[in-house]
Amino acid sequence: MLGLMQDRPLSLPHIFHRAEQYFGHKQLITGTPAGDTTTTTVADWAVRVRRLAGALEGLGLSADARVGTFCWNTARHLELYLAVPCTGRVLHTLNLRLFPDQLVHVVTHAGDEAVFVERSLLGVFWPHVDRMPDVRHVVVIDDGAGPDIPDDPRIRDYEELLAAAEPHTGRFTVDDENTAAAMCYTSGTTGNPKGVVYSHRSTVLHSLSTLFADGVGLRESDVVLPVVPMFHANAWGLPYGCLLAGTSMVLPGPDMTPRGILSRLAEHRVTVTAGVPTIWMGMLPLLGEYDLSAIRSVLCGGSAVPKSMAEGFRKALGVPVLQGWGMTETSPVATLGVVRSVHEDLSDDAKADVRALQGPAVPLVELRITDPDTGEDQPWDGVATGEVQAAGPWIARGYHGGDGDGERFTADGWLRTGDVGVVDAHGYVKIVDRTKDLVKSGGEWISSVDLENEIMAHPKVAEAAVIAVPHEKWVERPLACVVVADGEQLTAEELITFLTGRVASWWLPDAVEFIDEVPKTSVGKFSKKTLRERFDAYALPT
Amino acid sequence: MLGLMQDRPLSLPHIFHRAEQYFGHKQLITGTPAGDTTTTTVADWAVRVRRLAGALEGLGLSADARVGTFCWNTARHLELYLAVPCTGRVLHTLNLRLFPDQLVHVVTHAGDEAVFVERSLLGVFWPHVDRMPDVRHVVVIDDGAGPDIPDDPRIRDYEELLAAAEPHTGRFTVDDENTAAAMCYTSGTTGNPKGVVYSHRSTVLHSLSTLFADGVGLRESDVVLPVVPMFHANAWGLPYGCLLAGTSMVLPGPDMTPRGILSRLAEHRVTVTAGVPTIWMGMLPLLGEYDLSAIRSVLCGGSAVPKSMAEGFRKALGVPVLQGWGMTETSPVATLGVVRSVHEDLSDDAKADVRALQGPAVPLVELRITDPDTGEDQPWDGVATGEVQAAGPWIARGYHGGDGDGERFTADGWLRTGDVGVVDAHGYVKIVDRTKDLVKSGGEWISSVDLENEIMAHPKVAEAAVIAVPHEKWVERPLACVVVADGEQLTAEELITFLTGRVASWWLPDAVEFIDEVPKTSVGKFSKKTLRERFDAYALPT
Repeated sequence: MLGLMQDRPLSLPHIFHRAEQYFGHKQLITGTPAGDTTTTTVADWAVRVRRLAGALEGLGLSADARVGTFCWNTARHLELYLAVPCTGRVLHTLNLRLFPDQLVHVVTHAGDEAVFVERSLLGVFWPHVDRMPDVRHVVVIDDGAGPDIPDDPRIRDYEELLAAAEPHTGRFTVDDENTAAAMCYTSGTTGNPKGVVYSHRSTVLHSLSTLFADGVGLRESDVVLPVVPMFHANAWGLPYGCLLAGTSMVLPGPDMTPRGILSRLAEHRVTVTAGVPTIWMGMLPLLGEYDLSAIRSVLCGGSAVPKSMAEGFRKALGVPVLQGWGMTETSPVATLGVVRSVHEDLSDDAKADVRALQGPAVPLVELRITDPDTGEDQPWDGVATGEVQAAGPWIARGYHGGDGDGERFTADGWLRTGDVGVVDAHGYVKIVDRTKDLVKSGGEWISSVDLENEIMAHPKVAEAAVIAVPHEKWVERPLACVVVADGEQLTAEELITFLTGRVASWWLPDAVEFIDEVPKTSVGKFSKKTLRERFDAYALPT
Repeated sequence: MLGLMQDRPLSLPHIFHRAEQYFGHKQLITGTPAGDTTTTTVADWAVRVRRLAGALEGLGLSADARVGTFCWNTARHLELYLAVPCTGRVLHTLNLRLFPDQLVHVVTHAGDEAVFVERSLLGVFWPHVDRMPDVRHVVVIDDGAGPDIPDDPRIRDYEELLAAAEPHTGRFTVDDENTAAAMCYTSGTTGNPKGVVYSHRSTVLHSLSTLFADGVGLRESDVVLPVVPMFHANAWGLPYGCLLAGTSMVLPGPDMTPRGILSRLAEHRVTVTAGVPTIWMGMLPLLGEYDLSAIRSVLCGGSAVPKSMAEGFRKALGVPVLQGWGMTETSPVATLGVVRSVHEDLSDDAKADVRALQGPAVPLVELRITDPDTGEDQPWDGVATGEVQAAGPWIARGYHGGDGDGERFTADGWLRTGDVGVVDAHGYVKIVDRTKDLVKSGGEWISSVDLENEIMAHPKVAEAAVIAVPHEKWVERPLACVVVADGEQLTAEELITFLTGRVASWWLPDAVEFIDEVPKTSVGKFSKKTLRERFDAYALPT
């Protein structure tokens, strides 16, 4: 027997029309390359979304064309966020930090027919356009900076396009909620980036999760500044969540410096902000110089949040950092490190330890940990480790073009996240490593993440990465790759002495290599792949 | 192009398994007929849900059987809430206040194969069971009160059934999210009650809405007491929302007296509670006698919330009453009377006026107001009135068996709510009238048309119209406006005596006014508008 409920799709037109109907007076504030601020209202933005929708029709794009964006966090980027999927096309946000070959690869692999590029970024994009045969239009959004605009038939001006367009009237409709809405390529720690394709349904459901009180809990009264780029898994779903909740938004544009962000947080009385740990670490010493009293939530994700950083924020702002865990394939929020009533009686320090965990799955997401050898489910006892696998309506079931699907998805359709974790009796996940980064010594696992955290606790260490190198007896042993803080001196012996007693003796690195910097991926994560290549034939001391 | 997201259904097994996995330690507190309290944990409850699921298999019910419940708000009712839909069957919550013919009608119309009845309610249910031919099992939940249990082959004991059952192991699965999960009959505004059939999808989506920060915003740390009966549109979705959020719950059982509720609110440090205005009006003079300092949200709905009552609560508790508007057909929450940042600078009194509106639609719900004559959309200008129509994934598209569908659903699939409203520029709905002139007494509808028909059945009555007049406790009560037939004499007492037994006792008009004629519209219909104006400030006898 079927229910007798209306068959209304979960699709982005609902989010657009809700914002247009209810929140026209709210503000969208954008930072420009010149360091200025432009402010528009949601009502004016909505008019422009309707013009842009008309313009997309005028460009002669396919009905389900992929449309690339090469943009900062700006109100005009947000116009594309709605106009592209609301007309049935697929928003493909391009990572500004991709190497040229990767950029060419993802544009070509997605089959982007048009790419919208902010003029201040044209110098990074345009030199490669001849290697992108599907790209028929490069629409330049003039943000007042960047090179002269090339004289080329592919080039269009964004404002001219909008001015000439017949605006879309009436309601947008996307009837099949499983239609693709957006795509985002993973940062590719191994091999080429892979395309994750979000549907309207997954995007709307994930957006709803940003409203949950036990989490970010976006409210109409909030002012939200996403530091996380809009090309990172839809800025963690915040732009759509903000439109649904009716918040004002502050979109910082190109200036992502700690002081640039801090002054916007203070000036616009931002209440909710979100970004990777690196961003917050850079701000930590400066917090006292700004009035951040409006902030009620700082969401942090993308890599593990160091407890010392989170505690620094909590002490300065009176607000704990909320850790999220996930990845492009999980839309991205899969867990949130909320503190619950079982932790109520813990000390501040013990609560900080809880917040340093990745936390329980958010509603609609299911997790399990699986022995990578036997495929067996592991208990949630705080001891057993396994690969974290995820299921839910906003978790990927495959990659665009089927790249590498066999490796990353189980026979019963769960995502293999590639992270190794342990889950406690309350369902709190702790990620201990990447499956590919674990050091397996004599049949036992050493968590490179834990070891790195201990090494980075040394006051003279700026950054450190631990990789496995082959060992005749133990199969693998840890090698510490360490960047010494500016103006400091450190020896391997000093470091090993420091670690002794802080980690199990058999975890102590067999060697320490001092390097100038830890290589990073395009999204700022440690690229252990590069390090492993560099220390490929490393001979450990015997 | 389709998205590449997992095809995971939005279905109630997710809510069950989430509660079981994450919130086993949380409490379910139930009031008994004897005035005691029984406490169980979600873990123990989940074990019983699994046993009940096995028992349902053992009863030989159809795969999609409708299973009735005739129960108070109790933890055992909550077992049925999950076990019935998680096994693919349809939970049919029966209104305890139906009169016998309606009860027989809805059980028969739904085709209930089994009905679970609390023993303290058996005296109301059992006398009519012989007129319910589909009911093969009456499962008695012994709550320690009520009549001796009849010796009849249809009777089963709940606890014996559970004890003998093979528990369901592993995960529940409902693959098609459009499968019916629950049904609830409207209280019958005209003619017989009509069956609204909720799907798993609609129920899960509506449950998510209870977590939204701009609203009730259920959190794991909450303790929730739904005063609203679990037979009223799934207690407004709270039981499922609570399990999803991981709250503790206090289920009051039969004692719904103001003092009974108040003492539980105080004793269990309840943070969120919900019920119809009548309940709160009865409590208002008693608030000062109880420690209600834990309360952070009082949700109120079912009929318009009098400002004086809402303000009385705000002054006593420091917490404003949150008004919700909706109906069985809308699952039921369609709007919430939240105050937004545009109202920030208003005085307390003006804010109270905002909260007295029904408010904006919650996310995923869409509303419009339509001229009932022309069918044209009306502007949201705070002036134009129209019938409020609703669309969304938890809004009904029809009734079980197709009863009256033509009247209540538009050609483009929207629900005609039967309420007349005006919407302001911020999207705040104000309900100003009812298309069918209903009287809403204590959260229950009295059909003025039905009542008029009974009055006019009196041989000495020429014609009669019933209108609602304000009542301090019940919000509205019926006033009968009666034209006596030529040459006859009739007293109010005679008429009430005549009606007694023909209508439910709570339908009996509080007063009778004898008038010369019922005013008519140009097409000869009763003009209740004129009558309402005439009796605008009518003082009912107290």
